[in-house]
Amino acid sequence: MQTRFEIATRGQGLYEVTCPIATWLNGSGDGLLTLLVRHTSASLLIQENADPDVQRDLLAYFSRLVPRGDAPEMTYLSHTLEGPDDMPAHIKAAMLPVSLSIPIQQGRMVLGTWQGIYLFEHRDAPHTRQVAAHFRAD
Amino acid sequence: MQTRFEIATRGQGLYEVTCPIATWLNGSGDGLLTLLVRHTSASLLIQENADPDVQRDLLAYFSRLVPRGDAPEMTYLSHTLEGPDDMPAHIKAAMLPVSLSIPIQQGRMVLGTWQGIYLFEHRDAPHTRQVAAHFRAD
Amino acid sequence: MQTRFEIATRGQGLYEVTCPIATWLNGSGDGLLTLLVRHTSASLLIQENADPDVQRDLLAYFSRLVPRGDAPEMTYLSHTLEGPDDMPAHIKAAMLPVSLSIPIQQGRMVLGTWQGIYLFEHRDAPHTRQVAAHFRAD
Repeated sequence: MQTRFEIATRGQGLYEVTCPIATWLNGSGDGLLTLLVRHTSASLLIQENADPDVQRDLLAYFSRLVPRGDAPEMTYLSHTLEGPDDMPAHIKAAMLPVSLSIPIQQGRMVLGTWQGIYLFEHRDAPHTRQVAAHFRAD
Repeated sequence: MQTRFEIATRGQGLYEVTCPIATWLNGSGDGLLTLLVRHTSASLLIQENADPDVQRDLLAYFSRLVPRGDAPEMTYLSHTLEGPDDMPAHIKAAMLPVSLSIPIQQGRMVLGTWQGIYLFEHRDAPHTRQVAAHFRAD
Repeated sequence: MQTRFEIATRGQGLYEVTCPIATWLNGSGDGLLTLLVRHTSASLLIQENADPDVQRDLLAYFSRLVPRGDAPEMTYLSHTLEGPDDMPAHIKAAMLPVSLSIPIQQGRMVLGTWQGIYLFEHRDAPHTRQVAAHFRAD
């Protein structure tokens, strides 16, 4: 069982995708879910879905850890033609997960109480992002 | 075949979980193992299990890369109510693996000679951590 | 269906392995591919395979983020006997993916247009690296 989820992004930040994935799995029994983001400038995260401050702080931290290409400390970058948010987006996409595997029991992901699934957009401009999903029943 | 491993942690650091996982897999034939940590402030690592200095250095490096919330350079954080170790724990949990997939041959993980599996605890206080495990025979 | 790919590396950098993996999968139908690097000083990346500047910039960024063990700011490291590139290699291997899971449709990985698979070598000396591969048809 395979599908693709599309997520419309409006700039850098975390976009929760837990619900459409849970709906797709509903009634599927036991098995294994695999997700893959089909881009090199966006990531998949499992993170806290209770306090939205966590999402803001994650964005703030990674923006500081990987400064924009026009920052003084980033002058060594070569891949700069597509804008100052481009190469930092590739770096963040290398550092953060591109695929996730989640065991499924009775059609539900065995996530912890506070875990939600997020598409982390690393580019400034709006994008339509695709997440490939694969479910295999046991 | 699914189970959950519980790991009692006593502060930040790496806790090896290779043995109970290997024992659970024993006799299971060929297939695929998937592990998922059910928390947003702990990670799963595959790392060197020979020299314990490696584990100490990993802890030291990531503690410097993601300083505590009361460090002067972290004043931009918003999610600070649960203590100065809380938001850095979420950041480290975003950066380091939450799920691992490992091929199994004749009931054994195809790990390299020096690879062990670790639960990386990012919080100061003791916790009981759960790792969900899924094995599917070929 | 399992195999191991061997990659001969000649120092730090990204080595593309998309082609041998695609060839191995050819004709395999639908299913799930899992890759695991069997080392604690090398990583697996899915990254842009169009502009080689991206690969150079990734190497440059991570070399700065995790300086060599003989850099003044890294004097806290203990695991230094095997050379100044050794412990930084473990740190990068902890931070970047060790396993990848990729859905397969009609014998092809569902990668995005610009996604290639790379072995990221973190050591200076030449190595022969092994990537374990597992494919399970649906």
